[in-house]
Formats: sequence, C-alpha cells, structure tokens
Amino acid sequence: MTQRIAIVGATGAVGSVMIECLRERGLWNDDVRLFATTRSAGRVLDGHVVEALDGDADLGGIDIALFSAGGGTSKQWAPQFVEAGATVIDNSSAFRRDPDVPLVVAEVNPHALRQHRGIIANPNCSTMQLMVALAPIHRAVRIERIVVATYQSVSGTGHRALEELDVQTRADVKGDPVPEPAVYPEPIAFNVIGAAGSFVDGDDHTDEERKMMFETRKILEDESIGVAVTCVRVPVRIGHSEAVNIETGEPLSPAQARSLLADAPGIVLEDVPTPLRAAGRDEVFVGRIRGDDSHPRALSMFVVADNLRKGAATNAVQLAEVLIRSGLTASAARAGS
Amino acid sequence: MTQRIAIVGATGAVGSVMIECLRERGLWNDDVRLFATTRSAGRVLDGHVVEALDGDADLGGIDIALFSAGGGTSKQWAPQFVEAGATVIDNSSAFRRDPDVPLVVAEVNPHALRQHRGIIANPNCSTMQLMVALAPIHRAVRIERIVVATYQSVSGTGHRALEELDVQTRADVKGDPVPEPAVYPEPIAFNVIGAAGSFVDGDDHTDEERKMMFETRKILEDESIGVAVTCVRVPVRIGHSEAVNIETGEPLSPAQARSLLADAPGIVLEDVPTPLRAAGRDEVFVGRIRGDDSHPRALSMFVVADNLRKGAATNAVQLAEVLIRSGLTASAARAGS
Repeated sequence: MTQRIAIVGATGAVGSVMIECLRERGLWNDDVRLFATTRSAGRVLDGHVVEALDGDADLGGIDIALFSAGGGTSKQWAPQFVEAGATVIDNSSAFRRDPDVPLVVAEVNPHALRQHRGIIANPNCSTMQLMVALAPIHRAVRIERIVVATYQSVSGTGHRALEELDVQTRADVKGDPVPEPAVYPEPIAFNVIGAAGSFVDGDDHTDEERKMMFETRKILEDESIGVAVTCVRVPVRIGHSEAVNIETGEPLSPAQARSLLADAPGIVLEDVPTPLRAAGRDEVFVGRIRGDDSHPRALSMFVVADNLRKGAATNAVQLAEVLIRSGLTASAARAGS
Repeated sequence: MTQRIAIVGATGAVGSVMIECLRERGLWNDDVRLFATTRSAGRVLDGHVVEALDGDADLGGIDIALFSAGGGTSKQWAPQFVEAGATVIDNSSAFRRDPDVPLVVAEVNPHALRQHRGIIANPNCSTMQLMVALAPIHRAVRIERIVVATYQSVSGTGHRALEELDVQTRADVKGDPVPEPAVYPEPIAFNVIGAAGSFVDGDDHTDEERKMMFETRKILEDESIGVAVTCVRVPVRIGHSEAVNIETGEPLSPAQARSLLADAPGIVLEDVPTPLRAAGRDEVFVGRIRGDDSHPRALSMFVVADNLRKGAATNAVQLAEVLIRSGLTASAARAGS
C-alpha cells in the first residue's frame, strides 16, 4: 500500500536531504506532501508545491509526517498531525525528553518504536552517530563512561550557518574584512568555537552537550552510563566528527572492538575517517580504534558521519521504513482494528 | 651584557615568530645571527643577512642558539653549536626524550634548566599549552589521568601547510577542483583529519600523540599520570585548541580550578577561548572550566594558545631570558669560572 508521507520543514537543510532520502529509498510518490513556513509556500520542489503550515493546512490523509522545522513548530504542530491521524517522526528536541516518546536510532533500539503514541523522536545528530558506533560495544561489555569531544559541521545549524561560513571564507581569502557573524557568536571561518549549542539558564554545559548526555542514556536504556562531553563547532560544511574515549565494564581489545563493529549494522570501518569523505553517505564511519594505557579498560576511537543524513534525514526515513514494514503507523493500526 | 643570539631556521613559520619575539622582548640587536638552508641564504630579514648552515658556517661567539629547523638539522647541528660555545634551545623533537636534556615550559619547570649540558628542549606545541593550564592543578590536587582531543592549526606543520590550506580553500570557494593534497594525506580545507602527526613503525598512535603522552610526564615530573590523546588537524591557520578532561587525586571544584588558574602565570581565563582571538598572543587561554558528573573527581576545560608563539617561539625566548637572567648559559659559566 502506498504510504502518504509529509515533510514539515521541507526547505531546510535537513528537509532537502529528507526529500533525497525518500527518493533513494523508494518512498517518494505523488502523495508526498511538503510543508514549510508561509514565506516558502508556493515553491516547487521536485514537482511538489510546498504548502504553508498554517491554520488553513489540511492535515488529513497523512500516514507519516517527518518534522524538521525546529522545536517550536514541532511542539505546536506535531500533536495536530497526530490528531489528524498521522504518525510523527520529529527531528527536533521538542519531545526527546518525554518518557512517553520513543527516541530511536534505527540500528540500535527499533524495538522502542512499538511503544509510540503517535510521536517518535529522532535523536540529536551528534548522539546518533555515537550510538551507532557504541551500542554494539555496550551490549558486549557494557560502557561505564564516555568522554567525547565533537568536531561539528555548520550544516547542523542550518542553511544560514552554511551561508555564514561561505561568506566569511570568501571575504577572508580576498583579504576583505570578515562581516560580523550573525549565526555564531564569533567568526567560524578558519576558527574553532569550543561551545556548540546554546547556554541555557546559566548552565555550564551547552544544550547540545546536555542532549548528548541525556539521549545516550535513553537510547541505550541505561541510566548508569557517565557521559563527559565537549561540543565544538569547526569550519566544515557537512559531517560531524567525534574523538571518543570509552571505559568498559569488562576489558575489550582494539581487535575485539573492530570485530564487533565490523559485524554491526550501519558501520564502515576505516583507518582515519573524515567528514569530507563521509558527506553524502548514510553510514557511520569509525576509525582510529586503539587501546588506552591510561585506564585498565579503555579504548579510543574516531567516529564520523554525515550529520544531515545518518544524523537526521536518513535515520528519520529508516524509522519510517520500520513503522511501515511492521505495521506500526497509526493508520495501519486503524486499518487493522 | 649584550647577548649574541642565533636563530636556526629563521625563515620558517616558527623562525619568523622567533624574530618578532626577540624584538618585542628587547633581545634583538646587531649581533643576532640568522641561519637557514643554503636555498634561503642571502635573504635579508629585518636588516640581517640570512647565513647558510653548512660546513663553512662560523659558529663562534654565539651565546644562545634557538633551533627550529626540524629534527634532522637539530641532531646534526645542535652539538656543533654547543661545541662552539653556545647554549641551544631546540624546538624540534630531536632531544626531548634524552634524559640528560631538560624539557622546559617557562611557567612550569624552569628549575630544570639548571641541569642542562648545552642543549635544552622546547616542548611540542600541543603539550606546551596543556602544561601551562594543568601544572597549577597538578601541584594542588595531583592529576591522575588526562583525556584530551586536539584541534590543531595547520601552521604547526609549517609554511607549506598554510599555503596548502589557502590554495585548497580558494579553489573550493571558486568551485574549481581542489588540487591534490601534498602536505596532508587528504584535503584540509573544510575538513577535519583525525590523526595529526605521522604513524611510525606500525604504532596505532601518531608521533604527535606519543609526544603529548611522554612530554606531559617529563615536564610534570610524574610518570604516573595517564594520558589518552587524539591529535586532530583542523582548517585553522594559527592557534591550537584542546578539549581536556582531567581526573584528579583529590576533588577540585570548577570554582577552585578557576581560582588556581587565575593566579597562575601565563594564563588568561575566558568563557570560550578561540584560536582566532588567541593568534598573536603569548598567553594560554583557558575556558569552559566545568564539573563532570561522569566521574567523582573530574573536570573539563577548553585550552587555546597560539602554537607558533607560546607553543614554540615565545617559550623558547622565555627560556633564553631565564638562562640569561640566571647566568645559566655556557658562556656565562665560562665568564664566571
């Protein structure tokens, strides 16, 4: 049966990749509906007219809605899509902390989808790739502590950040004054900003760092895992990298870790993965797996993935596939009852 | 008494900053001698003709020689400068592991200079800034383990790497094909390379990572400190950043750490230091000092410094100042005897 899929935020950095993913995976059809702000409404993307998400929007007849339009839009509109009969896969952080909302990485905890009540949360991009790499190890030897430093690309912030990196870089190589930054607190071209995300309510960790801590435990279903994280923005367009150190409950050699990950879904082992080569790919690339003399049971590794694909759009579409295959959409439940 | 100072490798990325540092610190005079390869000989830098370092070079009359011309040049020439009466401060890794050669960060272990036998080693740039930030904490509560991930600028590799980043960036923003990389194994523009340094003899850590492990213990004079390190190259021109997690022997609150570092020499506390703002400065910038719930006695912080200045030239010149002030040059010893 043809599934009627909607994308909310279709003109954004993740939204456009969602369109690509639907096409690549055979879920693109004439019934696909694209929503965006009133400003973008009327644009035609891949033969589909973008609809405005406003009070006049007809939300009927949608099986699965993929949201990637920011937390505010999700909070306001996801419940209305559910009400109208859709199952929502939400890429924002709006519902991730809700105990009634499953937070799912397709390769890691698809079983959690069975508990959904209409809304499923897609994890944060930095957490996503880390979970694909660490879940097989956690299952084998239990991970007690993770110390991770990220190298996050600007596309994680959206189109405006990509534009800002571009404008600053062009000005810099021409020798022109670099325009005042608007998206980040400082220029990002030829720079590193050691605090990706925002500081909220005087917290000494950014919201991005808190997401990685919270979401790791929820996805791995283990509140005992310690997570120390520094989220850092770097002048890369697409692809997040992570320098990861893990302490395990039982010893695991680098060779054993490599072997576990070689057999795990969604992972490609490389010597030194880079964001430039990971961009446009759906897998998580893991390299530099090595021992760590500073702890009796620790390993280091370097984890890279396309933050727009596996970090966002690909996983959302993978979740849609599982929902469809397992008859877990609200519409399937209605048809079955 | 006027000191006669020589710079070996005067035309290199660090060499040119050594010239600046000598001028800024009042050590520049007509007796300064500049050495480089035969190819660069004859060039005039700041009114001084660059001399070729070859069999004809007259090495007499030099009080202090600052070497920054690569390990091969240091191994061959530093002993000859010492033989001719100079005290050598060597920025290469050639002598750092020699137990008879002090490895000195000016703010951390200047006492080690007293043991020198003609050659003093200037630490690796990434280690240097880490030591300035961590020594005050190690003295207060003993550091048991360090987990660090670096964000290293291309100037650490030298002029050719700066040129490579520039050429690749210009090609990329023009939409031209990016020329094959020559300095790094992959393009560095808009990329992250998760293995800074070289892999030697099948080691799974790079030589840069091994330097940070070894040198940390030698400088802090404590072989028990565990160091887990990932060295990463980023598309930044000048300024290394480090995401640092430390486990201490006794608990230390973020406020206590801030207070210790506020009183320590060579450190500037900031909220979020960046390499763009640290470039051209002599201090080490420390920010994001915060607790870490994942360990009973751990702290995280972000450490940034100009790798050509504090990471290399500034420290070498600071060491020269201490040698002069304390009468520790070979020539002072001769004059005193």
